[in-house]
Amino acid sequence: MGAIMKRVMLVIAYDGTRYCGWQMQPNGLTIEEILNRMLTEVLNEPIAVIGASRTDSGVHALGNVAVFDTITQVPAEKISFVLNQRLPKDIVIQQSKEVPLQFHPRQCISKKTYQYSILNSRFQVPTKRLYSYFLYVPLKVEAMSLAADYLVGEHDFKSYCSTRTRATDTVRRIYDIKVEKIEDTITITISGNGFLYNMVRIIVGTLINVGLQAYSPDHVKEILEQKDRLVAGPKAPAHGLTLKGIEFPDLLELP
Amino acid sequence: MGAIMKRVMLVIAYDGTRYCGWQMQPNGLTIEEILNRMLTEVLNEPIAVIGASRTDSGVHALGNVAVFDTITQVPAEKISFVLNQRLPKDIVIQQSKEVPLQFHPRQCISKKTYQYSILNSRFQVPTKRLYSYFLYVPLKVEAMSLAADYLVGEHDFKSYCSTRTRATDTVRRIYDIKVEKIEDTITITISGNGFLYNMVRIIVGTLINVGLQAYSPDHVKEILEQKDRLVAGPKAPAHGLTLKGIEFPDLLELP
Repeated sequence: MGAIMKRVMLVIAYDGTRYCGWQMQPNGLTIEEILNRMLTEVLNEPIAVIGASRTDSGVHALGNVAVFDTITQVPAEKISFVLNQRLPKDIVIQQSKEVPLQFHPRQCISKKTYQYSILNSRFQVPTKRLYSYFLYVPLKVEAMSLAADYLVGEHDFKSYCSTRTRATDTVRRIYDIKVEKIEDTITITISGNGFLYNMVRIIVGTLINVGLQAYSPDHVKEILEQKDRLVAGPKAPAHGLTLKGIEFPDLLELP
Repeated sequence: MGAIMKRVMLVIAYDGTRYCGWQMQPNGLTIEEILNRMLTEVLNEPIAVIGASRTDSGVHALGNVAVFDTITQVPAEKISFVLNQRLPKDIVIQQSKEVPLQFHPRQCISKKTYQYSILNSRFQVPTKRLYSYFLYVPLKVEAMSLAADYLVGEHDFKSYCSTRTRATDTVRRIYDIKVEKIEDTITITISGNGFLYNMVRIIVGTLINVGLQAYSPDHVKEILEQKDRLVAGPKAPAHGLTLKGIEFPDLLELP
């Protein structure tokens, strides 16, 4: 009797400070590498995870998603507990569960939500330094919010994408962007059906330029229309960015 | 002509994760030691700071206060900039200014405010792990809040003080305690005219026992009356605690 293959989904939170991002690479430790190594060890079979979002070096996640196939008899729900006992403290598996074999976290439709945090105060706050971008020049939050509205909807985001992208289709849909200020922290929350390489960080860098009054809010729309990376703002630093979570509407409908 | 001595006050924020607290000690690096070393180097004269709050190992601060005497001709206001260029990133001087020579941060009347953060959720959140105490058992916030009210006012806090204290007078006044829950985070904010050794952490540990329904809210009052450390709850972990700030009403009135 052959072993039965199942696909297991993980919901993963991590502090990206120590890591060279999600994707395996020769220059440093990545989340993907740690998960593959731990799972291979724990389940005693070679495991390779497929991540939904290949976050950049230094970016944090509260709910990234990955799947892997296994013939283990360990119930899918228990795998999170086993992993959490061994993982470093800056990586936590929040959930593990079986999903249909045809579920692929990058090919299925999804809604991803990112949050970017800017500490906009006179002084750096040491306990916030790892998770927000410190800027002491006061930003005009209302102008940033107006500018953000131009990006909502389906657009060609070629201007807001690293030139190193491999994507040929640069059209994406942004469902919502909110710019809020609570005390000294400005939070930009963006959700969409997918994001190009560095897209969130370039949008944030461009909105910061609006907040600094270097751009008028409607210039963000002109940048969009020019489809040229060189006309957009700089890429905001990685450590202010957190992948909040990913929803998969299809997952509910799969058998 | 002799050099003129002046007293300089520093307002200091730090991430306590890497430090063995404020006070100089042989076993590890402290905030006091780093400040003395940097100031001695920068001002080229031997400097010894006097801290207002000698925070424990692992405790954070957003506004601790220290003073030192110096004959430097560098204006007091500039010293913060010079220090910030050299300090490690987890220590930030928010302000430096001249104060009267008779101002002493531990002998003058002050109002200190501490904040304790509890992450009360099903899963640890890696990006919050260094600054809040993770507890997955749901706490009864309302009961904690009721219990906290018994501690407000002037009381003998002997039960809520480490037996290792050197204080003979254990009477202190708590101005206010607030217990609030926002999303998954319970925040306990305590202000008072002074705190005994480990007092905030023992109060928090006791309130957590109330939140767990191990104690009824009014048991907190009984503990107070017994004046015995052994009857209070455990000391909550250091990394959840932050010294928010210190106010000195007298400083406004000094010449």
